Amino acid sequence: MAGRPGDGNGVASPAIEPVLTDAVIVGAGPVGLFQVFELGLQEIHSHVVDALPFVGGQPAQLYPDKPIYDVPGLPVTTGQSLTDALMKQSSPFEPTFHLSQTVSGLAQRPDGRFDVQTSRGTRFLTRTVFIAAGVGAFEPKRLNAPGLEAFEERQLFHHASQSGSLEGKRVVVIGDDDHAVDVALEIAQRQEARARSVTLMHRRDNLRADTVRLHKLREQCEHGLLRFLVGQITGVETTDDRLTGIDIGLPDGGTERLPVDTILSLQGLTPRLGPLADWGLEMEKKLLAVDTTSFCTSIPGVFAVGDINTYPGKRKLLVCGFHECTLAAFAAAAIVHPDRPVRLEYTTSSTRLHQLLGVLPR
Amino acid sequence: MAGRPGDGNGVASPAIEPVLTDAVIVGAGPVGLFQVFELGLQEIHSHVVDALPFVGGQPAQLYPDKPIYDVPGLPVTTGQSLTDALMKQSSPFEPTFHLSQTVSGLAQRPDGRFDVQTSRGTRFLTRTVFIAAGVGAFEPKRLNAPGLEAFEERQLFHHASQSGSLEGKRVVVIGDDDHAVDVALEIAQRQEARARSVTLMHRRDNLRADTVRLHKLREQCEHGLLRFLVGQITGVETTDDRLTGIDIGLPDGGTERLPVDTILSLQGLTPRLGPLADWGLEMEKKLLAVDTTSFCTSIPGVFAVGDINTYPGKRKLLVCGFHECTLAAFAAAAIVHPDRPVRLEYTTSSTRLHQLLGVLPR
Repeated sequence: MAGRPGDGNGVASPAIEPVLTDAVIVGAGPVGLFQVFELGLQEIHSHVVDALPFVGGQPAQLYPDKPIYDVPGLPVTTGQSLTDALMKQSSPFEPTFHLSQTVSGLAQRPDGRFDVQTSRGTRFLTRTVFIAAGVGAFEPKRLNAPGLEAFEERQLFHHASQSGSLEGKRVVVIGDDDHAVDVALEIAQRQEARARSVTLMHRRDNLRADTVRLHKLREQCEHGLLRFLVGQITGVETTDDRLTGIDIGLPDGGTERLPVDTILSLQGLTPRLGPLADWGLEMEKKLLAVDTTSFCTSIPGVFAVGDINTYPGKRKLLVCGFHECTLAAFAAAAIVHPDRPVRLEYTTSSTRLHQLLGVLPR
Repeated sequence: MAGRPGDGNGVASPAIEPVLTDAVIVGAGPVGLFQVFELGLQEIHSHVVDALPFVGGQPAQLYPDKPIYDVPGLPVTTGQSLTDALMKQSSPFEPTFHLSQTVSGLAQRPDGRFDVQTSRGTRFLTRTVFIAAGVGAFEPKRLNAPGLEAFEERQLFHHASQSGSLEGKRVVVIGDDDHAVDVALEIAQRQEARARSVTLMHRRDNLRADTVRLHKLREQCEHGLLRFLVGQITGVETTDDRLTGIDIGLPDGGTERLPVDTILSLQGLTPRLGPLADWGLEMEKKLLAVDTTSFCTSIPGVFAVGDINTYPGKRKLLVCGFHECTLAAFAAAAIVHPDRPVRLEYTTSSTRLHQLLGVLPR
């Protein structure tokens, strides 16, 4: 993948020619991934942009292991299992993913095509755009402490995987959900490359994490492997441009200075619609208005599918998003392949679809 | 189940009081089964009527083993696997099935409820009706031979399972698809309770069955275990009200008299809309017109979902039917539970839904 424009491994130069394509999908959540599949059946290749560093969107990020019971034909699945299944299902169509970047600009040319640009400088020239952005690009909830933002990606991280080695470090994990507790427990229990100390901090005493995790947390605290602290950061202590300590406001009104080398802020994600709101698309209550025959927005060629759209009767459910991206793909086929009729064929019987899916040789 | 009105094991007497219920679903295909699930999430119990003697509808009947590639989150499934999964998914809501019968009557009472009656005399008094009847009730394609219909269900059968013992019988299987060939091969290869003779007959020389089956068929013919005959029935020979032989018109213009005890006519199914067409529902080209906010027909309380409905943009795909029955269930909740608000809850997080699904104690 290295060197391909906009693959997320490098920042493309703005001077590079745009990627010519038929479809750009904004959002790699379940609906965006099924959009790849449905476009593939229409012989349309997709480029997919997502703000997160991985595919799967909200379900993969917020509840990768929680059971989901209402996907038709899957009596029980999880955010991660569903993501894996949709990746497999769309794989015959070889989508190109552009992760860790948001779409920063959309402009239509006189010939009807769209210039799309991402926060990493990737540029596309495309016939159709599919906004499958859920409730917007998910961004980590920020800590509200003056002076802290200067240490982002050096000593303050929002993904556990980005912190680098924690050996010998004084680590503070901030958060209260299953994931935050899991991360704190995992660091505290390491047998190798051990951290010097681990503190889990949350502004309140009651945590959202489940009882099994809270039980483990109490156990580890009793064994002295980690500390749980109720408080909020009120200030920072720095030495030679390094973060060396944080001031903690305690519930009783007192303060405590906590020495620190690394902060993992795992307070969950918050959605941001971002520049999408400025593209001139008709909106209702921060959602994109679409028609139910094609799930097209007020700009022909720009479709909105999944939780980001609205229409009479809309319910924010996966099963609805899957339907929407299916009809959107049929509408897109008429734009991308104006020379041929759009037909409905079945994957049980169509030789053409079997060839596209790779189950018959082309 | 024995003795429950309309369970398909016995014919209910018309004098019996109607079954009081909130929902009757017409059609036990994939969309009808997912309708059970979505109604269950809305705390609405379903009675399901189907013309076939088994659940699963068209996919289970016509392509039980053929791969289906376009159900979201199922990279590959089959008609039977999908049916099994949907039965499992809807099982927490304990639907009552009424098989081998069609809905013969629908009438609305002044209080808004519906009287529904089936061909077996089962009667319902229900608040809502969901027509998930695909392209109509599937009926076996009939043989066009004068005098033959008198032997139906005695010596002429349309389901292999209904023929009773074939020991010592001269059997003629009529058909050319995978299923017909499978049945002929199976009867010819029996080691016990063997038939006296087995003939597979089709009006043309080229059969639709796949090459593997055709190869086996040729083999068995060469071994003298069965005979393949190209021809059509032109007349019948009877003795004492028993069918004893059939006259076959051969491709060369000649005829042959074939002695016969049992005919299995396996020429596939043909859909019939049946009395549905007479219920006063607004139709377009033999389909039920619905609005896309609730998939309600022209009669409030009667919904149409899946291949039987039509609306601008409609595509006859499972993924669309699943969406339709989901929104129909929300609309039905407002009718069945007018006293409470219809809320959107998620199966990942809602305690109420977990209790309904049986994953948490009620």
